[in-house]
Amino acid sequence: MAGDNEKKLVEEITSMDVDFAQWYTDVVRKAELCDYSSVKGCMILEPAGFAIWEMIQNKLDRRFKDTGVENCAMPMFIPEGLLQREKDHVEGFAPEVAWITHGGYEQLQERLCVRPTSETLFCDYYERKVHSYRDLPKLLNQWCSVVRWEKTTRPFLRSREFWWQEGHTAHATAEEAVERTEQMLNVYADFCEQELAIPVVKGQKTLKEQFAGAIATYTIEALMHDGQALQSGTSHNFGDGFAKAFGIQYTDKDNKLQYVHQTSWGMSTRIIGAIIMVHGDNDGLKLPPHIAPTQVIICPVMQKKPGVLEKAEEIREALKGANLRVKLDDRDKNPGFKFADSEMRGIPVRVEVGPRDIENGQAVLVRRDTHEKITVAIEELPAKTAELLEIIQADMLAAAKAHLESHTFAAKNIEEMENILDTNKGFIKAMWCGSRECEDAIKDKTGASSRCIPFEQEQICDCCVNCGKPASKMVYWGRAY
Amino acid sequence: MAGDNEKKLVEEITSMDVDFAQWYTDVVRKAELCDYSSVKGCMILEPAGFAIWEMIQNKLDRRFKDTGVENCAMPMFIPEGLLQREKDHVEGFAPEVAWITHGGYEQLQERLCVRPTSETLFCDYYERKVHSYRDLPKLLNQWCSVVRWEKTTRPFLRSREFWWQEGHTAHATAEEAVERTEQMLNVYADFCEQELAIPVVKGQKTLKEQFAGAIATYTIEALMHDGQALQSGTSHNFGDGFAKAFGIQYTDKDNKLQYVHQTSWGMSTRIIGAIIMVHGDNDGLKLPPHIAPTQVIICPVMQKKPGVLEKAEEIREALKGANLRVKLDDRDKNPGFKFADSEMRGIPVRVEVGPRDIENGQAVLVRRDTHEKITVAIEELPAKTAELLEIIQADMLAAAKAHLESHTFAAKNIEEMENILDTNKGFIKAMWCGSRECEDAIKDKTGASSRCIPFEQEQICDCCVNCGKPASKMVYWGRAY
Repeated sequence: MAGDNEKKLVEEITSMDVDFAQWYTDVVRKAELCDYSSVKGCMILEPAGFAIWEMIQNKLDRRFKDTGVENCAMPMFIPEGLLQREKDHVEGFAPEVAWITHGGYEQLQERLCVRPTSETLFCDYYERKVHSYRDLPKLLNQWCSVVRWEKTTRPFLRSREFWWQEGHTAHATAEEAVERTEQMLNVYADFCEQELAIPVVKGQKTLKEQFAGAIATYTIEALMHDGQALQSGTSHNFGDGFAKAFGIQYTDKDNKLQYVHQTSWGMSTRIIGAIIMVHGDNDGLKLPPHIAPTQVIICPVMQKKPGVLEKAEEIREALKGANLRVKLDDRDKNPGFKFADSEMRGIPVRVEVGPRDIENGQAVLVRRDTHEKITVAIEELPAKTAELLEIIQADMLAAAKAHLESHTFAAKNIEEMENILDTNKGFIKAMWCGSRECEDAIKDKTGASSRCIPFEQEQICDCCVNCGKPASKMVYWGRAY
Repeated sequence: MAGDNEKKLVEEITSMDVDFAQWYTDVVRKAELCDYSSVKGCMILEPAGFAIWEMIQNKLDRRFKDTGVENCAMPMFIPEGLLQREKDHVEGFAPEVAWITHGGYEQLQERLCVRPTSETLFCDYYERKVHSYRDLPKLLNQWCSVVRWEKTTRPFLRSREFWWQEGHTAHATAEEAVERTEQMLNVYADFCEQELAIPVVKGQKTLKEQFAGAIATYTIEALMHDGQALQSGTSHNFGDGFAKAFGIQYTDKDNKLQYVHQTSWGMSTRIIGAIIMVHGDNDGLKLPPHIAPTQVIICPVMQKKPGVLEKAEEIREALKGANLRVKLDDRDKNPGFKFADSEMRGIPVRVEVGPRDIENGQAVLVRRDTHEKITVAIEELPAKTAELLEIIQADMLAAAKAHLESHTFAAKNIEEMENILDTNKGFIKAMWCGSRECEDAIKDKTGASSRCIPFEQEQICDCCVNCGKPASKMVYWGRAY
C-alpha cells in the first residue's frame, strides 16, 4: 500500500467530495498544468498542461485537414471600425475587449482591440479573395490565443487570454454552410468521445445563448463529475449576415452576383478543464491514453540494486519501439513517492519493476483508472501495455458515459426540476415553450441555464415546465461552468 | 516549351535583375504566401505561407525536444512594471511596444504592453518555480506571435506582428548557459543547412548589435540572392543579469544561495523571407524538398482523354504510399498554365503524364530547380521521385553554398570595401579594432553593418580597415535586410 511519502503527497489534494472547486484547483496546481501569472486574469500553460494541448492540437488538426481545412494566421489586432461592421457581433464583444491606444510613444489614430474572436478579420480577407464560384469554398482555420476581459477567472475554464482554434468558412450556398456547421460539430463530438473519452450531448443553443451574429449555434455539452455542465465546443452558422455587412460576393456560374454563406467553429483550452473534471479522482489527474503526453511511466523499485536501472532502461526502449510515449522515473526518491506522483499527474499506466520481478522475468502493470495490478512477462510488455492502454481508453469512456446517463434526469414541472437539482446533480431534460421569459425564469428559479435543444428529441410531457403552455421542444438544462 | 498562358503568368513576376524588391513582393503575392491586412503593418499568413511555417515548426520543434526542451505558453501581455525590471532590456524595447490601456469600458490601473519578447515573463515565472539545484535546468520554449511597432514593414522581413519561437532557459552555472547558447545556435545552423538548404555564417554580434540585456548574442547570417545579408536566428547569453534583476535564486548542493544563469534564442517567420530570397528565381518560389508542404505535383496532359485522370490518381496514391507529400492538379486548365503555376509556387518536382506516356508506361519528372526532365517508368516513380527529391535538396544547398562563397570577399582597407560593395555584392571579411566609432564609421561610409564576428577567424591583415590601428578581430560586414 501507500508509503508515508505517498500519503503525504496525496493528502495535499483536497477530497472532491469535501470541496470540488478546491479539488480542481489542487489538481491543476499539483500536476503543474497551469500557473497564475503577474498579469491579472491571465494564466501560464506550464509544460505538463501545454503538452496536453499539443496532443489535442495534433489530433484535432488532422481531423480538420481530413475535411479539407487549411491553416493560416490572421493579425491579433482588429481596428475599431472593422469590429463595428456587423452590428450584433460588436454588441456582443465590445464590452469585453482589450484596447490598444499607443504604439511606442505615439497615440494611434484608430484604436485596435486584441481579437476576442476573428470573424471580422476573416470577412475582411474573404472580401478581397473571393470573386468567383471557383474560389469557393474557403475553409480556413487558425490556432491562436484570444482575449476577453472577464471579471472572474478560473484556470482553463475562464481566463482573460485563452488558447483555441477558430475555423472560418465561406460557401456558395446556404445548404453548404448548414452542412459544414453540422460537420464540424460532429468532428468535435467524435474527437471528445474517441480521444478524450468524454461523451457529449449535441444540440442547438437557444436564441439567448446564441453567438453574437449567428443565425444558429450548435454546441456539445459535457457533464463534469460534480454534475455541472461544460460547453465544450461550438459551431456557428452565420447565413449571409456577415457577407452582407462586409460585402463578400461572388459571381456564380450564371454570372450573377451572390453573397457567400459562412460558418465558424471553435474549441479551446477549456476542454482541458473538462478532462480534469470528467476523469479526475482524489488521487489527482487521470488522462485518457490517446491524449496522455506520457502514456507509461516506469518506476524502478530498489533502483540502486545492480541491474535494476539497466532493466528499466531496456523496458523503456522496448516500449518506445512499440510507439508508446514512455518515461522512466529514475529520480532519487522512494517508490511510494513516485507511485503517488505518477497518479497525481494522471499517467495511464505505471510499470513497477524491482530485483525480485527481474529474477522472475516479469514486471507489474498498474492501471491509473482502476489501480488494478497485472503481472506480465517482461518480453510481453510492449504488446500487453499497448493493449492495456486501449482497454483503459475504452473503460474511461464507458465510465464517463455511465456517469452521464445516471446523472441525466427528466422533469415535468419546475418543482421536480428544483427537487432534482437539490438532491442529485446533473442534466435535466424538460419541455420548453420557446419563450425567452420562461428561459430566464427557469434560470432564476433553479440556477440551471439552457444547455441546448438536443438533436435527439424526446417528448417528456406536453407542457412547458415554467408557464404550462403547450411545448414541443425538449431542452437540456444544467448548472454550468 | 512554355505555352501562351504560361508566358502570360510568368510575365506577371518582375525579373529579379530589373527590380529585386519588386520581384520579392511579386513572388510573395503570386504564390499567395502572405497578404496585407486592414491592420497597418500587420500581415496575414495565407495557407501556402502558413504551411511552410508549419513544416518549419514541426522540424525545428523536434530538434528542440531532442535537446530536452519543453513547450509552454506565457501570457501575451506584460505589465509595465514587469517590463521595466531589467534596465537595458526596457530601454531596448519600450520605444516599440503596443500599449493596452483599457479592458472593456474601464481604464486599467497599470498599462500592459503586448509582448515584444518574453524574457520578463519567463523570469517572473522562474523566480517562483526555481528553489533548489534540483529544479535546474529549466528548458522552456513557446511558439507564438510578438509585436514590435515598426515604422516600415515588408512581408516576412519586418512587420508589426510576427510569428516565432522563443526559448528561455535557466541554468545552475555560467558554463552551462554558455553551452546552451552555443548549442541552440548550432541547432539553428544545422536546421538551415539540412532542411532549408541555406548555408549560414555563425558568429557573435558586436556590442552595438547585441540583444538588450544580453552579455553575448550569437547569430547565424545568411546571404540573399541580391547579395544582402539576413540575420536568420539568434541565441543570447544573459549571464546572471536578469536573475539579479528578478531575484531568481536557488540553493546549491552546499545549501548556498546562487543566482541562475540564463539564455534565450529565437527564429521567426523572417526565415521564410530567406527561403524566398536564397532559392527563388524569375519563375517564382523554389522550395527545398524537406520543407515543401507539397513536394510533388502531378499535372495530367490531355486529362479529358479516357484513362488519363485515372492513371494520374493511381500515381498520386503510389507516391503517397512512399510517404511523399503529393497533389494532383486536375483543374480544368491547360497544361502550360499548370506547369507555370506549379513553378511559381515552388513545388520541387512536377510529374507530367499524358496519353502517349501512359501508352509507353512512363511519365516525365521535371525538376523545379534545374528544369531538367527525366523520363521514368511509371512503376518506378515512387522510388525515383523520392531519390530525386534528395538530389534536389542536396543540389539546392550546393548552389546556395557556391553563391555564398563566390559572394564573400576580403578587404584590407575601406577603399577596397567600398570598391567591392559597388561592383560586387555580398559579405566582406575585414579586420576591426573593436571600437564603436570605427563600426559606426564603416556603416556610414559603406552602408554595410557588422553582421558578426565569425567563430572561424582569419587574419586578413593586421590593421582595422577604418582607423588603421592594430586589429585582431575579423568581422563579416554586409548591407542587410
